[in-house]
Amino acid sequence: MSYVLYYSPGAASMPVHWMLIELGVPFEARLTDIDAGRQRDPEYLRLNPSGRVPTLVVDGMPRHESAALLMLLAERHPDGALAPAPGTPERGAWFEWMVFLANTMLPAMRDWFYAASDGDPAGAAGVRALAVRRIEAACARLDAHFAAGHDYLVGGRLSTADLLALVLLRWTRNMPRPATSGWPHLTAYIRRLRALPSFIEVNEREGLTEWRNDG
Amino acid sequence: MSYVLYYSPGAASMPVHWMLIELGVPFEARLTDIDAGRQRDPEYLRLNPSGRVPTLVVDGMPRHESAALLMLLAERHPDGALAPAPGTPERGAWFEWMVFLANTMLPAMRDWFYAASDGDPAGAAGVRALAVRRIEAACARLDAHFAAGHDYLVGGRLSTADLLALVLLRWTRNMPRPATSGWPHLTAYIRRLRALPSFIEVNEREGLTEWRNDG
Ligand SMILES: N[C@@H](CCC(=O)N[C@@H](CS)C(=O)NCC(=O)O)C(=O)O
Ligand SMILES: N[C@@H](CCC(=O)N[C@@H](CS)C(=O)NCC(=O)O)C(=O)O
Repeated sequence: MSYVLYYSPGAASMPVHWMLIELGVPFEARLTDIDAGRQRDPEYLRLNPSGRVPTLVVDGMPRHESAALLMLLAERHPDGALAPAPGTPERGAWFEWMVFLANTMLPAMRDWFYAASDGDPAGAAGVRALAVRRIEAACARLDAHFAAGHDYLVGGRLSTADLLALVLLRWTRNMPRPATSGWPHLTAYIRRLRALPSFIEVNEREGLTEWRNDG
Repeated sequence: MSYVLYYSPGAASMPVHWMLIELGVPFEARLTDIDAGRQRDPEYLRLNPSGRVPTLVVDGMPRHESAALLMLLAERHPDGALAPAPGTPERGAWFEWMVFLANTMLPAMRDWFYAASDGDPAGAAGVRALAVRRIEAACARLDAHFAAGHDYLVGGRLSTADLLALVLLRWTRNMPRPATSGWPHLTAYIRRLRALPSFIEVNEREGLTEWRNDG
């Protein structure tokens, strides 16, 4: 199994990068700096015509969509136990959290950060206001889940849903209401996950200094 | 394995309803008419606190998110062959299409239909304009895929990605540019899928008369 990850620091590639480190599988990481516009290089567009990160080249085939890549990697590396096994009662909850994060929180983040370039700048304020509302509703929902006594999203242990959630929550750090303000159970969860050696490691490798337990 | 599906005609429950029919597994279907507001009945909110359809009760556990339910059902019924088998090269493409449909087209549809109630009505025009842009970009992308000679989204045969895609495409029928106008390869795909006996059957059971090959 061969993996080449195209990533940009702190972007949607981060949960995939983190997962590869957590699994301990060999992979090559190639920087595609989106702040420098590298995602629009012709060479990159051949791998990913939408001009976004991540791309994960899996056994020679370029694949996209962070949530899809996390599910694929979980399936290819069952020993990593980053998803409940097929056939277990938690399996449905895992699919549900993965899709909820991918189709509620992630598109709202896209709206928040890209409203004025994905769409007409004249409509951007309305798009961003709705995005904030949805992101805060998702934070409240997560907080309620952890308030009910859960330490993780699914099955009482770390899964790909936590990896995706934590990176999405990281993106709230400069929003009107960051995930770490006023949702105490969510904050405790964030601090717990940020303490994981693989999270510290992916921050090191991507050169990220903000939003760490020591920072 | 027991299934109870809460559905509303033509809603996000439709691909799940269709899949259960296509698989030929026993299930019970319970109408939750969203036009009549039944998704806000206290009884339904206990099954799905977000007040949306579908809910699929799987062996007694209520589960949500149409894309997640399709993936779960594909895994629980491998003989139905509605997803490439784990370990095959098409598996990555299947996850990618499922997530792309779930996190690009489906949220844009939510924006189109619910901008004024999910958010501030003052911002709704901007939200809907961006939604249309994204939906049309997705139609163009699908059309290009079929123009390249594919009959289905993944692996040369019907999969859950087609079921989800067709229902999303159905929702464009009263939009500024319906999926059946000006994207010839997409239109051919739509006509091909609409001819499936299980699609005809789910339309019958949900009492839908629009957007059929005979209509
Ligand atoms: N749905 C995609 C979203 C990818 C995405 O929007 N990535 C952003 C960074 S977080 C990007 O590449 N932005 C650069 C651009 O759009 O030009 C996924 O989850 O992989
Ligand atoms: N992401 C959800 C979306 C579900 C959804 O938005 N369903 C709509 C009908 S298509 C609904 O229940 N609307 C009623 C309401 O929001 O009050 C899924 O795919 O299951």
